[in-house]
Amino acid sequence: MTSRSAPSSAASPATPAAAPIRVGVIGATGYVGGELIRLLSAHPSVRLVGLTGRERRGDAVGTVHPHLSTTDHVLDSELVGEVDAVFLALPHGAAAARVPELLERGITVIDQGPDFRLRDATDYPRWYGFEHPHPELLGRAIYGLPELHRAELVAAAAGRAAGTPALVGSPGCYPTATVLALAPLTRAGLIADVVVDAKSGVSGAGREAKAEMLYAEVNESVRAYGVFSHRHTAEMEQELGALASGTSAGDAGVRGLDFLPHLIPMTRGILSAGHVRPTRRVTQGELDALYAEAYGDEPFVTVVEAPPATGHVLGSNHARVFVRADERTGRILAIGVIDNLVKGAAGQGVQALNLVFGLDETAGLEALPLAP
Amino acid sequence: MTSRSAPSSAASPATPAAAPIRVGVIGATGYVGGELIRLLSAHPSVRLVGLTGRERRGDAVGTVHPHLSTTDHVLDSELVGEVDAVFLALPHGAAAARVPELLERGITVIDQGPDFRLRDATDYPRWYGFEHPHPELLGRAIYGLPELHRAELVAAAAGRAAGTPALVGSPGCYPTATVLALAPLTRAGLIADVVVDAKSGVSGAGREAKAEMLYAEVNESVRAYGVFSHRHTAEMEQELGALASGTSAGDAGVRGLDFLPHLIPMTRGILSAGHVRPTRRVTQGELDALYAEAYGDEPFVTVVEAPPATGHVLGSNHARVFVRADERTGRILAIGVIDNLVKGAAGQGVQALNLVFGLDETAGLEALPLAP
Amino acid sequence: MTSRSAPSSAASPATPAAAPIRVGVIGATGYVGGELIRLLSAHPSVRLVGLTGRERRGDAVGTVHPHLSTTDHVLDSELVGEVDAVFLALPHGAAAARVPELLERGITVIDQGPDFRLRDATDYPRWYGFEHPHPELLGRAIYGLPELHRAELVAAAAGRAAGTPALVGSPGCYPTATVLALAPLTRAGLIADVVVDAKSGVSGAGREAKAEMLYAEVNESVRAYGVFSHRHTAEMEQELGALASGTSAGDAGVRGLDFLPHLIPMTRGILSAGHVRPTRRVTQGELDALYAEAYGDEPFVTVVEAPPATGHVLGSNHARVFVRADERTGRILAIGVIDNLVKGAAGQGVQALNLVFGLDETAGLEALPLAP
Amino acid sequence: MTSRSAPSSAASPATPAAAPIRVGVIGATGYVGGELIRLLSAHPSVRLVGLTGRERRGDAVGTVHPHLSTTDHVLDSELVGEVDAVFLALPHGAAAARVPELLERGITVIDQGPDFRLRDATDYPRWYGFEHPHPELLGRAIYGLPELHRAELVAAAAGRAAGTPALVGSPGCYPTATVLALAPLTRAGLIADVVVDAKSGVSGAGREAKAEMLYAEVNESVRAYGVFSHRHTAEMEQELGALASGTSAGDAGVRGLDFLPHLIPMTRGILSAGHVRPTRRVTQGELDALYAEAYGDEPFVTVVEAPPATGHVLGSNHARVFVRADERTGRILAIGVIDNLVKGAAGQGVQALNLVFGLDETAGLEALPLAP
Repeated sequence: MTSRSAPSSAASPATPAAAPIRVGVIGATGYVGGELIRLLSAHPSVRLVGLTGRERRGDAVGTVHPHLSTTDHVLDSELVGEVDAVFLALPHGAAAARVPELLERGITVIDQGPDFRLRDATDYPRWYGFEHPHPELLGRAIYGLPELHRAELVAAAAGRAAGTPALVGSPGCYPTATVLALAPLTRAGLIADVVVDAKSGVSGAGREAKAEMLYAEVNESVRAYGVFSHRHTAEMEQELGALASGTSAGDAGVRGLDFLPHLIPMTRGILSAGHVRPTRRVTQGELDALYAEAYGDEPFVTVVEAPPATGHVLGSNHARVFVRADERTGRILAIGVIDNLVKGAAGQGVQALNLVFGLDETAGLEALPLAP
Repeated sequence: MTSRSAPSSAASPATPAAAPIRVGVIGATGYVGGELIRLLSAHPSVRLVGLTGRERRGDAVGTVHPHLSTTDHVLDSELVGEVDAVFLALPHGAAAARVPELLERGITVIDQGPDFRLRDATDYPRWYGFEHPHPELLGRAIYGLPELHRAELVAAAAGRAAGTPALVGSPGCYPTATVLALAPLTRAGLIADVVVDAKSGVSGAGREAKAEMLYAEVNESVRAYGVFSHRHTAEMEQELGALASGTSAGDAGVRGLDFLPHLIPMTRGILSAGHVRPTRRVTQGELDALYAEAYGDEPFVTVVEAPPATGHVLGSNHARVFVRADERTGRILAIGVIDNLVKGAAGQGVQALNLVFGLDETAGLEALPLAP
Repeated sequence: MTSRSAPSSAASPATPAAAPIRVGVIGATGYVGGELIRLLSAHPSVRLVGLTGRERRGDAVGTVHPHLSTTDHVLDSELVGEVDAVFLALPHGAAAARVPELLERGITVIDQGPDFRLRDATDYPRWYGFEHPHPELLGRAIYGLPELHRAELVAAAAGRAAGTPALVGSPGCYPTATVLALAPLTRAGLIADVVVDAKSGVSGAGREAKAEMLYAEVNESVRAYGVFSHRHTAEMEQELGALASGTSAGDAGVRGLDFLPHLIPMTRGILSAGHVRPTRRVTQGELDALYAEAYGDEPFVTVVEAPPATGHVLGSNHARVFVRADERTGRILAIGVIDNLVKGAAGQGVQALNLVFGLDETAGLEALPLAP
Repeated sequence: MTSRSAPSSAASPATPAAAPIRVGVIGATGYVGGELIRLLSAHPSVRLVGLTGRERRGDAVGTVHPHLSTTDHVLDSELVGEVDAVFLALPHGAAAARVPELLERGITVIDQGPDFRLRDATDYPRWYGFEHPHPELLGRAIYGLPELHRAELVAAAAGRAAGTPALVGSPGCYPTATVLALAPLTRAGLIADVVVDAKSGVSGAGREAKAEMLYAEVNESVRAYGVFSHRHTAEMEQELGALASGTSAGDAGVRGLDFLPHLIPMTRGILSAGHVRPTRRVTQGELDALYAEAYGDEPFVTVVEAPPATGHVLGSNHARVFVRADERTGRILAIGVIDNLVKGAAGQGVQALNLVFGLDETAGLEALPLAP
């Protein structure tokens, strides 16, 4: 639909700039940090120049991420030297405090946490329990879902070239799967009411030692959590609401969202099922056309004809979307699946980096999914 | 609410009848068959007198169910000798053909399959793809969910004592979890619309070798299936519809049900989430009262205050139910969890047997759940 | 082989003593504590009179063990009131300090930890890193593996009746599986050298929050640990050494044991493979006879003809043992499988309790394994 | 140790030949076939020109391997057109029949099955139950473990350039992990006796529907299989025997191997533990030096200082090796871990292809492991 490549004035993907982009990762010791190292180590136009982790100065990456021990990276306590872009993989609230100084130094920031995802500053105390220390930056931040905000990211590339570093709030994992699944319906004014029921692997809960995340607690069990209170609800309402607000349906159907996440016994993957009560009867053919138009040109979103499994995208930046109208009941079902640590976090951040630095959007993200 | 014990004219649980009930299992080689053997072997008032499995004549049970090899049961190709009750664990359609002859012989039948769950004979070709060979029996059959149909089961005990064997269609696994979660809301006329999103372990798919059920295919992946077409939809609409039809809300909200099951990487357990758009605003206190009234006296249903996990009921006949009203959106969430092979199959069948034979409803089902 | 029933002077199992045994559990909040509650709640001759957990006074059991919330037990900070027997499920070292006072009060103690398993006090500093505070009790303690030490447990029953409370050191999970698998070979002087390679589910690591035991760390991965240093080595050398010392082979082959445990992605279960270089050629028939003699009368040990799976004993007190001689190489393989939380911990403790209190050895332990 | 790059007369890795290597995969529908497609699709010097699968003519790859649906490959019933090299992923016995014709057509063959791994034709009836139809080719075939047979593979590159296609028997998964772990000890004459105890994920059992490989059968259970009879034993004895035969220890310690594989509940990964009774006392320092010399220059084998987990190499061609001497007992433990589908199958085949075609040995295999 929209062009996925950056403007031709930017560096061409075929001839990587002589000088690679110097990238740092702040908060490199968690799962998202590990994924960033894995992806950026193999990125053709990136040089990892700094990885920081609390009290980890001088430790080889392999001491924290054993699977990455063949890389020769070493952790530091602070970023040193020149950096072009920084990924933040920090607890919510922590990123907001550090961003102004990074931007001032001319460093582009891709925040993997929620601190720059929401446009309305009052959402932070309401959903996250803290006052945002820099509400003036929320309007400048780009919601880093390229499938919805590619034009802004490409514009940021121009701004960056002109000296203004970009600020990207990389989307949450649930919103990524959910918004990709529902966006074409929302944009078409088809949603009268929607229930979002999602299932996630446990890596999304992070790497901190918590008894409830022990193997013996998670295995052979499924449970809902965050009932009527999960923080990602705010993101979904914001993004779906924006898409819906210009339509005849309005945004009533996607505000006051009924979002229910579940924890299931697997490590990676999110499946989000959007149960839609539509504003009118639609045919499957109409839906197929809508989704083909929305995603036909997207490098990372595939519309599939059978219910997709998270195992079909494991380890990759791919998302799969499925939509079905039911003749019997008139209802619509829209499903999205992603790997929560790649398209739902680190991969999506790299995708935004590519756009903001005028690279091929898929650079460093070409890996096919791993199965079985 | 309703009394859970059988009428005093029946055998008292405290003094088991001198003669145990002679029970057979037809189709003893699958997972439900195995659970029936496990439960009935330990039942204080039952003697297992016949286990049949195709082409298995003379094989020790341990050759089919290695975990049961310490029992001394042997499989046969047909039931022989005198039997008081028979469990059928057969593919759909197969049971319907055999039941008339069993009833004629005076044998009480508990069918673990779907052939006697639906009241409307036209539902069989529509949902199951076969014409029911004995529609005249559908009215006689009892839907074996004791929490809704206890009075009928107790009445059947009287009939049985008078010479008429009972016919029980034991509920499906998804309907058990779903109907238990939603029944109090339905009965109170509170459901304007409901979406049922369920997650199941794979043992529900049975023991037949299918490539899509291989460990390597199921592990680390979640997917939806049976989109808008799962056969259990008919059962849920029947049972919820019956509860709703007498209320001011009517049954429109629970007919044309949006039911979506998912397969998740675990062996046992079903979690069903009912997302309800209510007919009016309700408070949490009102819901608490409704559920306490519905289940306060139930031996196997516990209303819990935190979202329940399937791991909390593993290996037991217990169900847990959770209900929450959301102040922000006005919506209601109702969750039910069960072990699909126990309360969702074999255990529920034994519970019905107990009622139909005037035993303590919990006989042989006292095992606490197994965790972790 | 040996009689499994208690002397007839003790209470007969058929007529439970009017007064149940009053039992307490100190350290009831971990996985072994939970299993003790699960088993003892259903024990026909036991009344649970006290459950203690640190800083848990007044909490319902269900707040700690949600699967047990239908029991009405409440935790306390200390045992109060009269108690006949106490199970200790405490970290190593903690039990040793408390036992003298309990014995003095006439309370029989079954310690689920290692503090009373080893006979040689110098093994504690060597393997566990602490000086045993009460080495004088080590000679009095019984190693609670009934299959090897039943006579001592039965004798303790007589002692207990005469006023001397018993002290049982309940075996570790790895030694239980390993010693049961190898005992007949050891006793027959057949072991010239043995390698023990074991695989365990993670529940054996306990319930404390550790990052390395998170689901995302354990899932889809296997690793060895405790290389040449696992503490259970001492137990295995003690028990196998004692069996071997009287034989022509002597105990050289089972001292300096090469024991390697692995952590695999499952919750419960231990499989221990004993790879034996025998002192002489043996036939399969000879092995079959040895094992039949050893275990033919045992209620909880079954000799099987195909390699056993831990899934065959899940949730039960059963052990399965398999032995095979290889014609090509002359080597012997002996495998044992158990549920580490039942026969490897709580169940075995209850089995010892039964013997020490003159009950049927299987009381409260009749549950068949759970599969699939 | 040995140089890992091909001779300079071959194509230089820095400048890929203008014409990519045309590669076919015969037997593309199984797990190894899927991995070959995944790896070869991303290989910089390879063009996939033919994928065959029984009765699959015209089917898109995504119908068989949903995770690969974004590639545009289509299956065929037979290879058509010009091909430079072919991978065979066929059942044992099937490959042997097809290879002569492929070689005659000048096609290099990399057989992922066992038909060309063994040097002694009598091993085929003994271990695999079939007479090898082309024993004359066994001497020509190269055992494709580059870490042991790199010189032969490089020599085959020269032969291929001169018109003689190469024939590679790609090693089995267990032998790869085991031989890499033990080779330095064997070569140094240090093995008096060795027990090999291995644990594997289930993907090694293939994709055929078998009831015993259903999720519900494999999950939460571990079992040994192939007791004293696993076919990979022959490979291990051949390769370790060849290394040992020239040493003072001779090959007695590695013939008559005690090899025991286990199936554990995970999809990918093999861990092989070699328990060694050494010919003499060795120090850890001596072992460290041996392993550093053996693997210091290897691109895919890393010697690690803590027991490695299979999760550390998931999805990659990396192997990790760990060795430890025990002061107390004098024994040695050597552990190897791999991803069975990559270094244990498809990746190792690609590694051989690279060498035989004079490419950089790591081409197409650069992916870092995926964790968590």
